Amino acid sequence: MTKINQIQSYLKEHELDMAFITTPDNVFYFSQFKSNPHERLLGVMIFQDATPVLVCPKMEVPDAINSGWQYDVIGHLDTDQPFQLMKEKVHSNNVSVNKVAIEKSHLTVERLEALQHVFPQAQFVRLDEKINDMRVIKDEMELEKLREAARLADYAVEVGCKEIAEGKTEMQILTAIENAIKDKGYKMSFDTMVLSGPKTASPHGTPGERKIQKGDLILFDLGVEYEGYCSDITRTVAFGNVSDAQKEIYHLVRTANEKAIEAVKPGVRAMDIDKTARDVITDGGYGEDFSHRLGHGLGISVHEFPSMTGTNDLQLKAGMVFTIEPGIYNNIAGVRIEDDVVVTETGVEVLTKYTKELIIL
Amino acid sequence: MTKINQIQSYLKEHELDMAFITTPDNVFYFSQFKSNPHERLLGVMIFQDATPVLVCPKMEVPDAINSGWQYDVIGHLDTDQPFQLMKEKVHSNNVSVNKVAIEKSHLTVERLEALQHVFPQAQFVRLDEKINDMRVIKDEMELEKLREAARLADYAVEVGCKEIAEGKTEMQILTAIENAIKDKGYKMSFDTMVLSGPKTASPHGTPGERKIQKGDLILFDLGVEYEGYCSDITRTVAFGNVSDAQKEIYHLVRTANEKAIEAVKPGVRAMDIDKTARDVITDGGYGEDFSHRLGHGLGISVHEFPSMTGTNDLQLKAGMVFTIEPGIYNNIAGVRIEDDVVVTETGVEVLTKYTKELIIL
Repeated sequence: MTKINQIQSYLKEHELDMAFITTPDNVFYFSQFKSNPHERLLGVMIFQDATPVLVCPKMEVPDAINSGWQYDVIGHLDTDQPFQLMKEKVHSNNVSVNKVAIEKSHLTVERLEALQHVFPQAQFVRLDEKINDMRVIKDEMELEKLREAARLADYAVEVGCKEIAEGKTEMQILTAIENAIKDKGYKMSFDTMVLSGPKTASPHGTPGERKIQKGDLILFDLGVEYEGYCSDITRTVAFGNVSDAQKEIYHLVRTANEKAIEAVKPGVRAMDIDKTARDVITDGGYGEDFSHRLGHGLGISVHEFPSMTGTNDLQLKAGMVFTIEPGIYNNIAGVRIEDDVVVTETGVEVLTKYTKELIIL
Repeated sequence: MTKINQIQSYLKEHELDMAFITTPDNVFYFSQFKSNPHERLLGVMIFQDATPVLVCPKMEVPDAINSGWQYDVIGHLDTDQPFQLMKEKVHSNNVSVNKVAIEKSHLTVERLEALQHVFPQAQFVRLDEKINDMRVIKDEMELEKLREAARLADYAVEVGCKEIAEGKTEMQILTAIENAIKDKGYKMSFDTMVLSGPKTASPHGTPGERKIQKGDLILFDLGVEYEGYCSDITRTVAFGNVSDAQKEIYHLVRTANEKAIEAVKPGVRAMDIDKTARDVITDGGYGEDFSHRLGHGLGISVHEFPSMTGTNDLQLKAGMVFTIEPGIYNNIAGVRIEDDVVVTETGVEVLTKYTKELIIL
């Protein structure tokens, strides 16, 4: 059953007339067409039986068809009213729209009001959970892409480590990494992070002109996109001697990462994995300095369902892919170690394979 | 009057209890804190009299304060319920929330429902137009940043032109441009576009491994961010001889760009500027091949209010900044020429200054 067929079955089962899917990554999931529409309307309309319709800017119609979309298309100009065009399409298909499934976590209030205007009798319900349930389980074709994306991320960290030298700036190292990936014909899946010295203690810091010095920790957080699928890896390495206190923190984070990975298998809850890592760090005396969740789902989006928090009681199933990225951030050190993992039938497969031994360059 | 004061006055004037601002670029506009919160909640709460509150992920609180935010902060963990924390803050401030202004073009349906849950008695109205009205008029400090961003874009095109050589790929030229900007300590304001040959006819094409050949047109569409403000320039140049038909198209697009720029002054409508350019291209016989609006507002966002379409009757005012970017896309050529302009008291100031003579390399 194709992904569109699965939504059609869901519509029938729940007596819904139409699904309108607007998150760009979900549009890609259902159409193979990857596009950033900025403020323009992009979406896929799926009905119980009528032909699905892609709604996109007119100038992107050829790209959509080249990407493999083989159903109907509404290509709208900036002077068109796309919701009006959707209404006309629905009418010409003789579909009555009384119950519509939308992505409430993505659709804006303004667009909901526009839908209410053209379908005044319609009731709007959530489709988010259904799509999450589909996307969270990766099929073998998706896993192959994620494996390759992770291999490229390992390579990017390798390039970064080779580039480290006294006096080089964070931006110079970052540029070397990004060029190496571009040379292979790929692009990063998000803004590459190279942080050094005290800056590693900022979980969301910005790389800049700071020069590498002896005694620095250097943190890489990066990912590569491969055929629409993302990787996300973090490694923290040392340049020159680091203090025993820093080594102790590194060891704690690594142990937290490894214990959490060992705990992954079907049936275990997301919150249990978070707790496994957090307990290691809390027992080590740094609980307060691990200020974020353990990780996040990974696939077409860098951050996707599920969120690996201490309160998420979602049970893991085979085919789920997420990051495990404990960290400690204080005035002694900033260390984070992040891997991408897949839940298998019997346990776990780790996609990112770059060493977690403390590298001292 | 500070920007926050202006919103406070607006709340009083319209008898609104709270504004909740969530578009990241608007959060930057009011707080000087630039952040991409991904799926986490980021927002600014402004009241008639009570102290404003920034809502952001807990780990970003230090960055927010470093950026200059000097009022209250709600820093939330992934395990927190941020809307509940907002409710508690409002209660502890003794503010009653009966009428709330939100950004309907940004706030998701899910978040509106969360607000309705914690403020069940509240009515929700649009704040979008008020913020657009504020942001659309740039003050002198903002204009200085936009001028510098445009100077950097000119430089980036210059680097790109120097890099063109037979057999080089689009990606190699793109990398040279991006490295030159990184070396100066800046970053691009959006994904750089370098397209060659038939690919220039795709207004939203993707740079790749295509090699430059004699007779190619090469299109650069790029921008640089300077202190939070963006530029956006397009130039199309030729490598080796181009046909007379291609030269005619280039000349038409250039004339459309220049006539539209000449037409810019206070009191003229956005649609008039679009028409001025479109008439040139239509009269030249290529009206069907100019498939997008003339341009878009520019500032903190690469695409912002106003949209320069054929149906927008907004009257131009001094301080507005937007792009003028006519194009013709067909199987003879793909040409677009884009400048960033400011409406002045008496006419227009063009920020991007790279030559529009047809460069034949």
